[in-house]
Amino acid sequence: MLHAVIMAGGSGTRFWPQSRKQRPKQLLPLAGSESLIQQTAARCQPWIPPERIWVVTNARQIEATREQLPQVPPGNFLVEPCGRNTAPCVGMAAIRLLQADPEAEMLVLPADHVIQPDEIFQAACQRAASVLVQHPEGLILFGVRPTYPATGFGYIERGQPLADRADAIYEVARFREKPDAPTAAEYLASGRFYWNCGIFVWRAARILQALAEYEPELSAGLQQLTDAADWSAAVEQVFPTLKSISIDYAVLERARHVFVLEAPFGWDDVGSWLAVARLRGADDAGNTIDGPWSGVSTKDCIVRTTPDHLVATIGVEDLVIVHTSDATLVARKSDEDGLRKLVSQLEQEGRGNLL
Amino acid sequence: MLHAVIMAGGSGTRFWPQSRKQRPKQLLPLAGSESLIQQTAARCQPWIPPERIWVVTNARQIEATREQLPQVPPGNFLVEPCGRNTAPCVGMAAIRLLQADPEAEMLVLPADHVIQPDEIFQAACQRAASVLVQHPEGLILFGVRPTYPATGFGYIERGQPLADRADAIYEVARFREKPDAPTAAEYLASGRFYWNCGIFVWRAARILQALAEYEPELSAGLQQLTDAADWSAAVEQVFPTLKSISIDYAVLERARHVFVLEAPFGWDDVGSWLAVARLRGADDAGNTIDGPWSGVSTKDCIVRTTPDHLVATIGVEDLVIVHTSDATLVARKSDEDGLRKLVSQLEQEGRGNLL
Repeated sequence: MLHAVIMAGGSGTRFWPQSRKQRPKQLLPLAGSESLIQQTAARCQPWIPPERIWVVTNARQIEATREQLPQVPPGNFLVEPCGRNTAPCVGMAAIRLLQADPEAEMLVLPADHVIQPDEIFQAACQRAASVLVQHPEGLILFGVRPTYPATGFGYIERGQPLADRADAIYEVARFREKPDAPTAAEYLASGRFYWNCGIFVWRAARILQALAEYEPELSAGLQQLTDAADWSAAVEQVFPTLKSISIDYAVLERARHVFVLEAPFGWDDVGSWLAVARLRGADDAGNTIDGPWSGVSTKDCIVRTTPDHLVATIGVEDLVIVHTSDATLVARKSDEDGLRKLVSQLEQEGRGNLL
Repeated sequence: MLHAVIMAGGSGTRFWPQSRKQRPKQLLPLAGSESLIQQTAARCQPWIPPERIWVVTNARQIEATREQLPQVPPGNFLVEPCGRNTAPCVGMAAIRLLQADPEAEMLVLPADHVIQPDEIFQAACQRAASVLVQHPEGLILFGVRPTYPATGFGYIERGQPLADRADAIYEVARFREKPDAPTAAEYLASGRFYWNCGIFVWRAARILQALAEYEPELSAGLQQLTDAADWSAAVEQVFPTLKSISIDYAVLERARHVFVLEAPFGWDDVGSWLAVARLRGADDAGNTIDGPWSGVSTKDCIVRTTPDHLVATIGVEDLVIVHTSDATLVARKSDEDGLRKLVSQLEQEGRGNLL
């Protein structure tokens, strides 16, 4: 059976002041009235029942995450005691899934991306799962066809199409790190490259077998969870000792039978405030507004505020204005570097409590 | 004896969202840690004791005004039941002063201007009062020497200097309404024009006599206050019936013995957020900050916030950012028209409660 594993451990600062350590991006309603993680779960639910939806998160976020996903059984939340990148996370989830379902197949999903429409996504996932029938050893990645020469994503270079499949599924020729701008332009022009969007489909047993093959030490650590009488205690004890490494690096870049399926759905990693305008759309003046607002001569702005607080703007353009109860950001819209600088400046100023 | 009469009935919107109908400009600490009206009272107090400081305000503001001026005796607050411009206000104050002191001289002062230094102001007021010894019928105005061709002020054209005075005191040749830009430039070039800053010195009996001469109906209305057994009840009843007219228009533009004394002090009417930066000064990056703030690549901004709320800015310049508990303004710094538009827009949107 296909299970969804939602990876929800992120804690970025790109949506400060709305995002905080306790309330990261995936818990915010950035692309609709529901939060990104709620949208992610809802996207699976028509065809994966909540009992087969699993969420990996951390201790700081578990409470808020559970609150947002009341339909998911409490036992389906897996808590990382500390961040160890995606390989230990995927491994832990695979072990837990196998305990529940020895034939478990995993659809691994980031909690904080936007995908649409849901129907196409569903069909694509089912297509990926169908590959596992012919290729039970398959490690399947979704590849997003680039729309611009992005330097912020890893790329997947496709190789030969699978001989026994009529649809756009290929062997992976190579993985490429985030490229510089000229290289990204070449990738885009070649037509052979995809963005790695971090959505994977494989059999739980297969990914554990691959981890054992390529990361035996990590695999041995994880093995202690399989045999544990007390799952939580074992996780608390073992997880911090595991090697911090991505599943891409640990397995996908080394293994055979790694396939890329061209994603037929719309995908957005919601990487900055700009994405919010892109996803929510704008009014005639180019403004994307969420909350009470009144503007004079205002264009191309993103304004977000709480229901009890008016933001008024006069004669401004290309700003992001985000009001929260204890902090307000007013920033040039495209200045993502500036936001990183601000966050470290707040830390230095002793204002870490606002992060 | 010289009495100070502080006129504190204003309720502008140029400092929204800090200024509100209930909390107008003069009650805000725009130019220091004290509010403008507190600074105005403090400016007089070294030489005019609180018992001779009078405040004219309205019912909506009386409570907050009293709170800010605890040193002024409760009986020295005069409440206008409705706005009737400055002539009824000055007339009412003159009547009240004469009840307390038959020889009262009045220094009439707007509550919401900045004047400095205090010592020069004090000397200038005493000089004005000394003119009344030689010219008891004198109606003395302070005239501010223009520093730029302002179109937002009324002007006073000076005539002959008073023959018996060695200092810069002149007969008034003419009053001029707010000029257009070319006319303002002529006024500035001529050297004969002053800004009318609304600071007056005269004998209380004299201004009432002048009102009787030029506005007999208004004077007759005011007369009912003189004879009233119950001051408050009489004001409630009479004030709304009085003609709404400025003291300039009612008396000063018509009377004889109107003199202008060149103001030797610095004067600012604090007409917009720009004035706040001018009066408070700016840091090396041109920013004028009041409250918790953290900025990256920010220049020439005015930021004001409450002690419990951080404002963070990135990559912006020439903005006014004002956070209050229920509304935040982000505006191009010089756009005073925009603020007027915004205020009427808020009214139309049914957000008058925020004004």
